[in-house]
Amino acid sequence: MSQLTDSTTPSTSSPANAEDAPTESSVTPAVDVAALGEQLMGNWAGIRRTARALAAQPAIKRIEGQTLTEHRARTMEQLHTLVAEKAVHRAFPKSVGGEENHGGNIAGFEELVLADPSLQIKSGVQWGLFGAAVMHLGTERHHEKYLPGIMNLEIPGAFAMTETGHGSDVAAVGTTATFDSHTGDFVLNTPFRAAWKDYLGNAAVDGRAAVVFAQLITQGVNHGVHAFFVPIRDEEGFLPGIGGEDDGLKGGLNGIDNGRLHFTDVRIPREDLLNRYGDVAEDGTYTSPIESPGRRFFTMLGTLVQGRVSLDGAAVVASKLALTIALTYGSERRQFTAGSESNEEVILDYQRHQRRLLPRLATTYAMSFAHEVFLAKFDDVFSGAHDTDADRQDLETIAAALKPLSTWAALDILQEAREACGGQGFLVENRLTSLRADLDIYATFEGDNNVLLQLVAKRLLTDYSRKFAHAGPGVMAQFVVDQVNEAAINRTGLRGLVQSMRDFGSTARSVGYIRDEDSQRQLLTDRVQTMVAEIAGRLRPASKLSKIDAAALFNAHQNALIEAARAHGELLQWEAFTDGVNAVQDAGTKQVLTWLRDLFGLSLIEKNAAWYLIHGRISGQRAQAITSYIDDRLLPRLRVHALDLVAAFEFMPEHIGAPIALGAEKARQDEARDYYRAQRDAGTAPVEEKNIDKGKRT
Amino acid sequence: MSQLTDSTTPSTSSPANAEDAPTESSVTPAVDVAALGEQLMGNWAGIRRTARALAAQPAIKRIEGQTLTEHRARTMEQLHTLVAEKAVHRAFPKSVGGEENHGGNIAGFEELVLADPSLQIKSGVQWGLFGAAVMHLGTERHHEKYLPGIMNLEIPGAFAMTETGHGSDVAAVGTTATFDSHTGDFVLNTPFRAAWKDYLGNAAVDGRAAVVFAQLITQGVNHGVHAFFVPIRDEEGFLPGIGGEDDGLKGGLNGIDNGRLHFTDVRIPREDLLNRYGDVAEDGTYTSPIESPGRRFFTMLGTLVQGRVSLDGAAVVASKLALTIALTYGSERRQFTAGSESNEEVILDYQRHQRRLLPRLATTYAMSFAHEVFLAKFDDVFSGAHDTDADRQDLETIAAALKPLSTWAALDILQEAREACGGQGFLVENRLTSLRADLDIYATFEGDNNVLLQLVAKRLLTDYSRKFAHAGPGVMAQFVVDQVNEAAINRTGLRGLVQSMRDFGSTARSVGYIRDEDSQRQLLTDRVQTMVAEIAGRLRPASKLSKIDAAALFNAHQNALIEAARAHGELLQWEAFTDGVNAVQDAGTKQVLTWLRDLFGLSLIEKNAAWYLIHGRISGQRAQAITSYIDDRLLPRLRVHALDLVAAFEFMPEHIGAPIALGAEKARQDEARDYYRAQRDAGTAPVEEKNIDKGKRT
Repeated sequence: MSQLTDSTTPSTSSPANAEDAPTESSVTPAVDVAALGEQLMGNWAGIRRTARALAAQPAIKRIEGQTLTEHRARTMEQLHTLVAEKAVHRAFPKSVGGEENHGGNIAGFEELVLADPSLQIKSGVQWGLFGAAVMHLGTERHHEKYLPGIMNLEIPGAFAMTETGHGSDVAAVGTTATFDSHTGDFVLNTPFRAAWKDYLGNAAVDGRAAVVFAQLITQGVNHGVHAFFVPIRDEEGFLPGIGGEDDGLKGGLNGIDNGRLHFTDVRIPREDLLNRYGDVAEDGTYTSPIESPGRRFFTMLGTLVQGRVSLDGAAVVASKLALTIALTYGSERRQFTAGSESNEEVILDYQRHQRRLLPRLATTYAMSFAHEVFLAKFDDVFSGAHDTDADRQDLETIAAALKPLSTWAALDILQEAREACGGQGFLVENRLTSLRADLDIYATFEGDNNVLLQLVAKRLLTDYSRKFAHAGPGVMAQFVVDQVNEAAINRTGLRGLVQSMRDFGSTARSVGYIRDEDSQRQLLTDRVQTMVAEIAGRLRPASKLSKIDAAALFNAHQNALIEAARAHGELLQWEAFTDGVNAVQDAGTKQVLTWLRDLFGLSLIEKNAAWYLIHGRISGQRAQAITSYIDDRLLPRLRVHALDLVAAFEFMPEHIGAPIALGAEKARQDEARDYYRAQRDAGTAPVEEKNIDKGKRT
Repeated sequence: MSQLTDSTTPSTSSPANAEDAPTESSVTPAVDVAALGEQLMGNWAGIRRTARALAAQPAIKRIEGQTLTEHRARTMEQLHTLVAEKAVHRAFPKSVGGEENHGGNIAGFEELVLADPSLQIKSGVQWGLFGAAVMHLGTERHHEKYLPGIMNLEIPGAFAMTETGHGSDVAAVGTTATFDSHTGDFVLNTPFRAAWKDYLGNAAVDGRAAVVFAQLITQGVNHGVHAFFVPIRDEEGFLPGIGGEDDGLKGGLNGIDNGRLHFTDVRIPREDLLNRYGDVAEDGTYTSPIESPGRRFFTMLGTLVQGRVSLDGAAVVASKLALTIALTYGSERRQFTAGSESNEEVILDYQRHQRRLLPRLATTYAMSFAHEVFLAKFDDVFSGAHDTDADRQDLETIAAALKPLSTWAALDILQEAREACGGQGFLVENRLTSLRADLDIYATFEGDNNVLLQLVAKRLLTDYSRKFAHAGPGVMAQFVVDQVNEAAINRTGLRGLVQSMRDFGSTARSVGYIRDEDSQRQLLTDRVQTMVAEIAGRLRPASKLSKIDAAALFNAHQNALIEAARAHGELLQWEAFTDGVNAVQDAGTKQVLTWLRDLFGLSLIEKNAAWYLIHGRISGQRAQAITSYIDDRLLPRLRVHALDLVAAFEFMPEHIGAPIALGAEKARQDEARDYYRAQRDAGTAPVEEKNIDKGKRT
């Protein structure tokens, strides 16, 4: 600690003071910005840089204040530019001119959020949903016939899955596609208003076709949801039998023409069923390579996981941008003097400001590392490198865990950044409000976050029950007990008491313990496992209950399930962050990044301190020591490196855009300080009334 | 409990099951909506209803999707309508045709947020800031000369306090008003760019004058910030020496023409100093009725507290509207079947959905009752009924405590309501996104929320140190110990252990204790007092330190100070809610409202459970029992009454506006259910593949 040139560390004594000396290394903490930047760029750094260069072009960047119509038209034009720049074809089959590069495709795509989230999402609709559905759910004949036009934007299309009445529960959509064996056609129908397809990008104006998800009915049997390629519009407007509505103004993403579609006896040829996972013969016989209707449905949906991957990545990019803006401004903005008469404090030197921004910076790093792991897993599966059922299930669980956490975090980070920039943050020119408005919907589309976390929880329960399928209660209890050393003797709370007594008066030992990587891992892992085990125990009676009573029992623990899933997602983030730290070569960078990872890990434990206390995992003294360690050590240490940590995000001025993060605030502060300094030097400053001797004043 | 007809209570056993019988009354819980509505309308119910009738008029309501220019023009027109309707003159002196009704004025004003927050804030600028500054900081001559034109909108004006460089620290603004005794004029100057007045409503387009806050300099002495009436614009544009800029697009409130102003040798007559708290004679001599420059400054600012009052009230109104929309939709929207094949669940029957919305409903009630207490206090002070220095200080502390809590809560509630309505919530027609965008800035204007909470914390510390000015450490420790019975023997954590053992196996007793009103009060009060005492103890060395070291010590506890202030504000809300409950006559209503108050109080304790555990105030078992009691008892009970609880907000369909809260969702659900029912009845429904015998299927 004595080696560290950490000038902002308060000189006052604090409970966490004593613990540093034994374990701190003598490395000079300093960020190698270029190397860290390269690491953060990840596996597809080249593609990301190409996409960023594109996102810096004026033609691609958003123009604020456009009307709905102008913004939509501009976004559509930008899509043509993406085609011209070959920015969007990387994932498609080589047979039609693509590269079959799935990870790279997403990496490039998610950087577009820097230019305009409407551009990101509209191109996501065209190539990531509409095009990807034809690619993954269709077969060779569909690829040949439709992909070229989709890729070059001759066929703008909608991804017609969601209905007004069914978003999260896709299996229950109302649209039907009934096979007519006399004509050999499917007949599409929308039976009632709630079954209108809704919120579809490209549906209101630009779309010429749609991939429509409908209940496939043949020979009197409903085989569940399948996808169909359906032309919807020509130059004249909707084709016969098709109708729709414009969704109109939204809270953000107004560059996208979201709309509704409905179908009345719309006939499409049998061949336009996207038939990779289910087909109908001329005589109406249904066949599928996947026997179980449930598994078939989830397999189909699973091929579309890339939407979640890219939202997770875009949330990371937006969070990085928000913190670049807020931390730059916070390092230049001054307000209030603290102790000295004439020297106003830089606001990032206030503890509260550090508390507001630095843990969010740590979260953003965690999200960034986790996303890269996620993206690599996605590429592994879709490239075929590792594409077992288990791989796909793991990928979907990771997606369902990370997308909610990062999209919620992005909203939180954008809002805190906005508030941390005060009135400047509210000006559209400083980017934060528009980004927040656009990203709002990321929390509920491509899977409502709360619903996704329940998928994670179910997976955790399934894994748990598989492990203990034939185990009695004793084994299960043992499972809980064995997880963590710390927890080894604490089923009755005894360990908590012992630790509490041992810790008393010695905060040094308590933080020393918790700062350790393995201890953080144990605490975070233990919490997930114990939560799952507890819930599993409470749900055990369900197997003996009626379906309705079992559902009620499950519902009574829904909130706890979602919290367990969140804890699991946070653990994934922490693990990825830790792997990222361990991959760093430069010792100075590694030190700073370790502090940042500690801030992430300890903030999680602090946030959930009640749980750790209740379960006897930490003592009250240790819980308090964590808070002191964050406030007194980690925040001041990291404050010094905050600008380097955002510099490693490698944004160009064209990406940042916000005048307050590009020198405007610094220029204003310098001018004001120069003015007052010159006035003092010249002796022309007026005397302050409060400095006049009271006797003389009257 | 057996008396309650609470059909949604899960039948499964749970830790909180045992505790109800002994203390529950046999009253049938039911909300008397009309009576509760009347109570919530508060002291100025008549004025609120008049304002709501106005806010329901199409001419007053916002038109979404307007351009900046259109929206600004429309809002200005609406201000003329407010003049014509005599909706905005209640606070002004009777001498100029007002009513001197301060509370009623604010009550009416804050309901305008229902029509358009831009309208609320632009009228707030004109009459609540610009006009109120002339009224409170000026004297009779200013009232006579300027108020009539301000009241009838002949003089639209800006409130030119904030500068680009100084928002929170008003005392440090850079604009100067130097008295020239040769000409008898004040000369206004803007010395550098950071001293431009900024974010001023009415400055970009409509303002003809401004109340400008500047450093008053005369005879070489700076007497601090004073207010001046300054004409800025005529039909031709800016007057000589005045310049400015348009702030342009903002994240919300785009009906207001915010802009910047700067002054170069602008001369105004001596008489246009608003001279209630400081004056300059012809010879340049400065006089003031308040000797201390610091106290004078805070007295001047204190007269403008009504901005914070009205933001608090508007945040309450917006929160009520958001929950009306989300709870109505949640009661009609269905998604997923739970146990039964064909019957989809209403989403508000899911535990998670209840967890998301019902505690926020409780918070909104708490905010509403607290606001009414706050408004009455404001009226007491400004009517002169109770207008001592202590009253004013109390009022300002309440304002600084409640405005941050309610404006942050409104953003949180609007966002959760948006997400709870899924894609529908993102459509502008359903109100939530626009309201959220408009209310965003409420968190940082009229006092940045974090800065305001520090004012509260300083007041808490001052009160504390006054009480113990001459007390030794023993007395102070005693103070902490005496606060609460529960805490009486727990300085060493001993009590915590004892309680933990006693509670073991008996969650009944633990919840029974905590559900009690006095126990909640004790726990909440104890926390505030203990936090303040702890921080005071840690800050005690400051008196022996240099100014700079003392500031560093203070900074090292800034986060803890803000958390203590928040706890104080929450206690104020809880107390107001409890007084509100106790004022209810109808037993059924009282029962429901008591549950809602318990949900508020217990949610606060649950949120801060780590603190209570660390400080030995509650045991781990009790903390878990609180969560179980919320999940298993309070949420299901309150779910039944949720629609009545929002009905008591008394919004007309014209205020709600959102189609999803006005029958659209119900109509869609009914149609869909009727369709499937008819299909089942007619036997025309296709067979589900999964229900076909596997042997037959192939």
